Amino acid sequence: MSDEMTSATFTEQEWSHFEKKSLNQTEADELRDWSRFEAKTLNEECGLFGVWGHPDAARLTYFGLHALQHRGQEGAGILVNNNGKLNRHRGLGLVTEVFRHEKDLEELTGSSAIGHVRYATAGSANINNIQPFQFEFHDGSLGLAHNGNLTNAQSLRCELEKSGAIFSSNSDTEILMHLIRRSHHPEFMGRVKEALNTVKGGFAYLIMTENSIVAALDPNGFRPLSIGKMSNGALVVASETCAFDVVGATWIQDVQPGEIIEINDDGIHVDQFTDSTNMTICSMEYIYFARPDSNIAGVNVHTARKRSGKILAQEAKIDADIVIGVPNSSLSAASGYAEESGLPYEMGLIKNQYVARTFIQPTQELREQGVRMKLSAVRGVVEGKRVIMVDDSIVRGTTSRRIVKLLKDAGAAEVHVAIASPALKYPCFYGIDIQDRDELIAATHTTDEIREAIGADSLTYLSQSGLVEAIGHDKLCLSYFDGEYPTPLYDYEADYLESLAKNGLK
Amino acid sequence: MSDEMTSATFTEQEWSHFEKKSLNQTEADELRDWSRFEAKTLNEECGLFGVWGHPDAARLTYFGLHALQHRGQEGAGILVNNNGKLNRHRGLGLVTEVFRHEKDLEELTGSSAIGHVRYATAGSANINNIQPFQFEFHDGSLGLAHNGNLTNAQSLRCELEKSGAIFSSNSDTEILMHLIRRSHHPEFMGRVKEALNTVKGGFAYLIMTENSIVAALDPNGFRPLSIGKMSNGALVVASETCAFDVVGATWIQDVQPGEIIEINDDGIHVDQFTDSTNMTICSMEYIYFARPDSNIAGVNVHTARKRSGKILAQEAKIDADIVIGVPNSSLSAASGYAEESGLPYEMGLIKNQYVARTFIQPTQELREQGVRMKLSAVRGVVEGKRVIMVDDSIVRGTTSRRIVKLLKDAGAAEVHVAIASPALKYPCFYGIDIQDRDELIAATHTTDEIREAIGADSLTYLSQSGLVEAIGHDKLCLSYFDGEYPTPLYDYEADYLESLAKNGLK
Amino acid sequence: MSDEMTSATFTEQEWSHFEKKSLNQTEADELRDWSRFEAKTLNEECGLFGVWGHPDAARLTYFGLHALQHRGQEGAGILVNNNGKLNRHRGLGLVTEVFRHEKDLEELTGSSAIGHVRYATAGSANINNIQPFQFEFHDGSLGLAHNGNLTNAQSLRCELEKSGAIFSSNSDTEILMHLIRRSHHPEFMGRVKEALNTVKGGFAYLIMTENSIVAALDPNGFRPLSIGKMSNGALVVASETCAFDVVGATWIQDVQPGEIIEINDDGIHVDQFTDSTNMTICSMEYIYFARPDSNIAGVNVHTARKRSGKILAQEAKIDADIVIGVPNSSLSAASGYAEESGLPYEMGLIKNQYVARTFIQPTQELREQGVRMKLSAVRGVVEGKRVIMVDDSIVRGTTSRRIVKLLKDAGAAEVHVAIASPALKYPCFYGIDIQDRDELIAATHTTDEIREAIGADSLTYLSQSGLVEAIGHDKLCLSYFDGEYPTPLYDYEADYLESLAKNGLK
Amino acid sequence: MSDEMTSATFTEQEWSHFEKKSLNQTEADELRDWSRFEAKTLNEECGLFGVWGHPDAARLTYFGLHALQHRGQEGAGILVNNNGKLNRHRGLGLVTEVFRHEKDLEELTGSSAIGHVRYATAGSANINNIQPFQFEFHDGSLGLAHNGNLTNAQSLRCELEKSGAIFSSNSDTEILMHLIRRSHHPEFMGRVKEALNTVKGGFAYLIMTENSIVAALDPNGFRPLSIGKMSNGALVVASETCAFDVVGATWIQDVQPGEIIEINDDGIHVDQFTDSTNMTICSMEYIYFARPDSNIAGVNVHTARKRSGKILAQEAKIDADIVIGVPNSSLSAASGYAEESGLPYEMGLIKNQYVARTFIQPTQELREQGVRMKLSAVRGVVEGKRVIMVDDSIVRGTTSRRIVKLLKDAGAAEVHVAIASPALKYPCFYGIDIQDRDELIAATHTTDEIREAIGADSLTYLSQSGLVEAIGHDKLCLSYFDGEYPTPLYDYEADYLESLAKNGLK
Repeated sequence: MSDEMTSATFTEQEWSHFEKKSLNQTEADELRDWSRFEAKTLNEECGLFGVWGHPDAARLTYFGLHALQHRGQEGAGILVNNNGKLNRHRGLGLVTEVFRHEKDLEELTGSSAIGHVRYATAGSANINNIQPFQFEFHDGSLGLAHNGNLTNAQSLRCELEKSGAIFSSNSDTEILMHLIRRSHHPEFMGRVKEALNTVKGGFAYLIMTENSIVAALDPNGFRPLSIGKMSNGALVVASETCAFDVVGATWIQDVQPGEIIEINDDGIHVDQFTDSTNMTICSMEYIYFARPDSNIAGVNVHTARKRSGKILAQEAKIDADIVIGVPNSSLSAASGYAEESGLPYEMGLIKNQYVARTFIQPTQELREQGVRMKLSAVRGVVEGKRVIMVDDSIVRGTTSRRIVKLLKDAGAAEVHVAIASPALKYPCFYGIDIQDRDELIAATHTTDEIREAIGADSLTYLSQSGLVEAIGHDKLCLSYFDGEYPTPLYDYEADYLESLAKNGLK
Repeated sequence: MSDEMTSATFTEQEWSHFEKKSLNQTEADELRDWSRFEAKTLNEECGLFGVWGHPDAARLTYFGLHALQHRGQEGAGILVNNNGKLNRHRGLGLVTEVFRHEKDLEELTGSSAIGHVRYATAGSANINNIQPFQFEFHDGSLGLAHNGNLTNAQSLRCELEKSGAIFSSNSDTEILMHLIRRSHHPEFMGRVKEALNTVKGGFAYLIMTENSIVAALDPNGFRPLSIGKMSNGALVVASETCAFDVVGATWIQDVQPGEIIEINDDGIHVDQFTDSTNMTICSMEYIYFARPDSNIAGVNVHTARKRSGKILAQEAKIDADIVIGVPNSSLSAASGYAEESGLPYEMGLIKNQYVARTFIQPTQELREQGVRMKLSAVRGVVEGKRVIMVDDSIVRGTTSRRIVKLLKDAGAAEVHVAIASPALKYPCFYGIDIQDRDELIAATHTTDEIREAIGADSLTYLSQSGLVEAIGHDKLCLSYFDGEYPTPLYDYEADYLESLAKNGLK
Repeated sequence: MSDEMTSATFTEQEWSHFEKKSLNQTEADELRDWSRFEAKTLNEECGLFGVWGHPDAARLTYFGLHALQHRGQEGAGILVNNNGKLNRHRGLGLVTEVFRHEKDLEELTGSSAIGHVRYATAGSANINNIQPFQFEFHDGSLGLAHNGNLTNAQSLRCELEKSGAIFSSNSDTEILMHLIRRSHHPEFMGRVKEALNTVKGGFAYLIMTENSIVAALDPNGFRPLSIGKMSNGALVVASETCAFDVVGATWIQDVQPGEIIEINDDGIHVDQFTDSTNMTICSMEYIYFARPDSNIAGVNVHTARKRSGKILAQEAKIDADIVIGVPNSSLSAASGYAEESGLPYEMGLIKNQYVARTFIQPTQELREQGVRMKLSAVRGVVEGKRVIMVDDSIVRGTTSRRIVKLLKDAGAAEVHVAIASPALKYPCFYGIDIQDRDELIAATHTTDEIREAIGADSLTYLSQSGLVEAIGHDKLCLSYFDGEYPTPLYDYEADYLESLAKNGLK
Repeated sequence: MSDEMTSATFTEQEWSHFEKKSLNQTEADELRDWSRFEAKTLNEECGLFGVWGHPDAARLTYFGLHALQHRGQEGAGILVNNNGKLNRHRGLGLVTEVFRHEKDLEELTGSSAIGHVRYATAGSANINNIQPFQFEFHDGSLGLAHNGNLTNAQSLRCELEKSGAIFSSNSDTEILMHLIRRSHHPEFMGRVKEALNTVKGGFAYLIMTENSIVAALDPNGFRPLSIGKMSNGALVVASETCAFDVVGATWIQDVQPGEIIEINDDGIHVDQFTDSTNMTICSMEYIYFARPDSNIAGVNVHTARKRSGKILAQEAKIDADIVIGVPNSSLSAASGYAEESGLPYEMGLIKNQYVARTFIQPTQELREQGVRMKLSAVRGVVEGKRVIMVDDSIVRGTTSRRIVKLLKDAGAAEVHVAIASPALKYPCFYGIDIQDRDELIAATHTTDEIREAIGADSLTYLSQSGLVEAIGHDKLCLSYFDGEYPTPLYDYEADYLESLAKNGLK
């Protein structure tokens, strides 16, 4: 081990830097919250589902949201429209926890519905923030659900409050409704368009009116949103196409950047709230977030991941015995790598299928003895082998370090970490929960430093061009890798520049 | 389609035969109970874990039971020994549901513990049946946990009741304690041996006394039971070795058929309660029940399964494009099949990772439109392809039929079902929940009839010799396949012969 | 029985008129909801409690709200001020249900707090309506709690919404905050005064600012609100003085009509938001709502009730054997009646002390056999006796009818109903839940008709002058009895006049 | 204050003697557990209810148990007989907590039922001890419920265990079933009689067989047990007659000491298991336990209590202004005292009707400031008055001391405590939870010492002859007052004599 490497080896103090946001959070990563472990702190904000024209609208939405559960596990809600009267059930937890009893759905009578699953940061797991929001005015009712993140939310909210607005949540979603209600445009759709042109950033909205569902997507189309049709003619809209399969619907079209679409008894009416559009789909949807059976912009996610594994194998030829994937999100890429490299694809890591959101923690003493609740290395598979461990990404590095150790403890001779995406160096402001570069190990460390830190024998990332090739189109937001943001950052600009300066980058 | 085939096609009425035991159960298979779906009605009775000589005995047992959760999901319990005083917490549900709060473990102070996870048939999901059992006598306390099934339970219970015994559960486990208490042998271990020689069938017992844990295994060793050691010298005992990894223990020996082992502060003392032993480990442990990272009788389960897939590929050469496994239990065999056949191993079926024990059901109308909560076929993978679908076993055939349909609906050109074990034709009386041949489609139908019934283009089973070769030794109970039971059937004999007669077999 | 009487006997159809609002509600009166039974559908809107300057502010508020529990059982909440930062816990149910765990209070750190108990009509038992409300603005935080009913809420809300306001509850409480936030007065207290002069009706408000509690009472002082002091100097404010005793505080002053009082570290600062005041305290507070150990405007409630019983005995001399009260609210008046009349005061009705908010209902068949869950007549006491049954009021008459039947079934020779207040004929618009004359049997029936309807041998009401004499002052709202409302009715005017017209009254 | 008095004044250390059993218990008395406060540590063991021949047997039992709730609040259960098949629901908590959902009753189909409410000491609030017990044998099923306490339970249990019996609870109820099952008598009723003649002490049993309910009472008839009839002919049996009223049944006979009664489709068949009987009904049933509307041995409880107050007033003429009772159990006696003495009966203490089994506790600091959750003194009533406070009994004295202080803090000039029963000096072994004389302040202190200790201006007890006169018959167990036990004490004898010796009494 060279001096250089030695110096790159992180002390516990240095590791704690990456874990500093909250040590309890680190515990959580390891032990408590399965979903966060899965997500490795990269959390999607939300998933949307809507249905128009079906007698079982709420139940369909329940199934649709369950298929979108991976997009948000902190809360869920369904709002129905029963002949113009809105009604809602929402709560904290998984869809199956929020809708626990048959009556929870039965009471949601109505032939159209919108639903939402939400990821929320620990501090704000507040029922008030769970969507869809419902607004009851003397002149009518509206429902609202949102996936994404506004970049000018703070300044809009401040401005609105100064003129007397009262917000009932600390979610930025509510802003759109204040803008709609304060617009002086004579028609509802005109007011919505005005509001959509005022908010900035990444957003997919579903609005339930008394006689329609309105769907809208930001001018960059950061988040996916698609429309499907059921055999009885009912129309559905969902963040991912996997939700269509679960309810037996067929994809018919994607909502395009800058579009505002009205769905009602007359069918689908497509309009634009702006012509100034530039499609840049979030590349992390392909890499990590979306379900492998979803198609985004016509590209199957599993196929894109498998291709990323193949290209990674071409880019990085590693001398090893077997290829394993970190379950579950990296299995596609791993099988691609194995196929391309000709090495056997093995099940070297297995996941305990009996997951729980809350585990009782081991004592400190037990932790040292190695309690492993969720992931186990299969000694019979990895012992004495040179292992290529394919993963989709590295955020803080803490999880990678633990998995490498798991494999080595089980007797792996070498562990070569192959990441099926480029290094994550820059935060996201359009709907993924990383807004601080300090959380990203690759923002401040070289690949070799990271390799040393996670204890791997080698560390390889997929190139950015390799990623684009794997996905098959370039209408992508790749700012996490290269820092090139496709829009101004508005309220985030100042803090972001400061964060770059702190790291001596700009 | 030939006449023969047409006649073999099952009507709904015929299918309902296989589902007749309880139609609600069929619903459950599909929709309600994830764990049962997983298990396809083949349910293990129990999992055992014990620890002697560790200050965190209860917490270690909690982690150990979690690793054994796949062996029983209906209830769990932990009994601790705190300097001779026994204390217990038990409940219905998963380990993480029964032990929900830190205090549930904190109150279980003590340096030794035994724990149990239990599968129970629907009717008897009764807290009284949840183990470990605890007995408080004027002359001391005892704890008891059991994995297996006694073949002479009914006659023993009847005999005991006639002489005044009162049972507090309808589990057969309690019988051993009545036998121990009624033995006139002057020493405790002598009384236990007498009792062990009276009960027949498959059994692994853990008894907690005030100063030891006693482990015992039936003379055939149907169920696995192993002993491990922690770095601090604490001894652990578990149904599967995967539970050792989770607590950082190392395997040291298996409990052998006919052994009675006392574990106390002096270490391990091995004795035999009988010399008349004949090792016949349950082959279904390798095929389906055990976790892939466990070793049984020195053989890694994943490795055995992967070998079974390879041998299956040698035995059955199928002209196809891709190989997929049914997640999760068949993935090892599928990758073995792919590797041997040279066909690409693909992720053609994905499982929704957000499982729940209770789902709200779709209405009948929605079911017809295709609500699929747990398993999805990946259209982008299977469309237009000739698919080899590897599964570990077929019980009633209902699940296979549904998965084949899922794949065909997603565009698979052909679906060839390859089963990595021989056809299940005979019930088990030693601890697996199939005691009625009517539940087994292969007991009364030819392979071609089954193929037709499940809608597959071909159906292949692994040969019995192939299975033995894959596992690597022949000290196996294979009675499910050939009807050759290694022991008398005692109380079951009469009913079983009648069931065979009914099917015109003997 | 005379023809006249016969014609006055209500048919079941006629009775159902008084129960028509909701038949389920009638069931509830009898069987389900003990608190509603108690209240006989006369429901107070709320109770308020606040404390400034005590390290255990939340815990004191918990105890204070428990003492005020009779003023509202549908929900409760506590909001604390921790050095300018507000924090809140609220929920549906009784105080002891909402604050179930020690941590519920422990997390409410802070040296000042306001709390609220709420009665809510069935339809709106919505967590969003539970107070105190908490508002987080970019420029600070505010808490708000309210007891009373605004008479111009509907028009204010409509007007506010038209100018873009979004309400997050359907409570009228939120209106005040919108008015405060939209005021252009340069100072906070000036904005509050402006808002207080805009709302009309009955209101007692507590506002938590970052550095004070503001208490305000409507110009008529319909609802009681008092200020007390603890031995350590902490100041408390409560709807009733009984809450002072429970926390060991001493009464120092009542909040007067039109007053706005700021309580902060400098002590109490009294101001007026209007000079146009006219004290008319709700007389039902003395008759029914308030706890007997409270003092309102210097008059002890038990003493006023006992006096009302005495004066009733003077006004109505009834030839009978014993006097009994309907537990618990009428026991004071009954003992006064007994003392004045010289008849023995007996326990002829007893209440099951094991109350529950939800009882499982008897089947129809059992109801006919006489299931009586909450109130029993004591046969040994009433058998063969001429009984004077003292009650505080009659609303719909259904409860009185049932109690008279209970007594007769237990063998009472005669039952003379003596009501310790005048007949209730007119609705309340200032905070009691009767806004429809149809609910009041005395609005449309003569005393003799009512007597016949409830099956009593005689029925006597206290005179209005007797009531005033019993209370001891005339600064009272007596509109329930004489229809003379001390303020304009604003939004209620039109509906009310229509309801009078319907009954042929005006 | 004289030296004598000073020396009699208890120090905190001395008080703590009476509270020593568990300081937490003292907390509980004051704050936590309303029912225990009520009971002042005198806890009844149980209440029984049964019904034969009614389609709604379980529901009737639910209502009956609710009426008997005061006899046991720790757990409840109902066991039904559905054409010979037994089924049961039981749980910890109040009847309304155990039977929370309609389905809890609906699932208990059957035309006969027995039910039980149980008081349990803190340590053994174990679901296994909740009755009725259910026993399933290969030759049939039995249910069993018990009110009372066996005096030879310990020796019987030990003897049974030595011959191989296994107990599933630590309740003494199970013993009877072991005795029945081990009897060699050829007929069931013969076996039951043998068993009843083996157990000693106080017991009322209900046994559910497949075709009857068997009721039996100990030879002294310590506990009440009565039989009633419904209008449809169904027969009911209950610990107190108040449970008959609630279900619309009429009393027909009491179960007499030594009787064994079989209730089945043929009606009531009365037999004796022994002729050696001697009726000594527990006098505390009249004084404290039973509900005022119950009749025991033909005497109404309220009437007996009112008479005890009158006789107390004759025996102890106290110069005072008003009479108040401690709610709720002493109100009858207080009104009797007032009537006899000619003093006004006032409501000087009121109870918060919103009771809860668990209150969050005040901090130590708040306790000193006087948090009073459950009982309040009415200042307007007691201020400046010489008060006679009537209570039914004094156990440890801690509660009396607190109530006296409450009254003095509210301004009472003098507080004279008048107890409507003789001083409690001796423990009970037949079903009341006082088996240790150390818990009884009167066992070791003179009346004047107690008076001083509780801070009263005078303290008077009813004479024993006065109590007998008030009740109206002398078939009573008065051993609490005079130490004359009507039976041998068996297993308790040795400990009891030692306890007397310790106090220098025998």
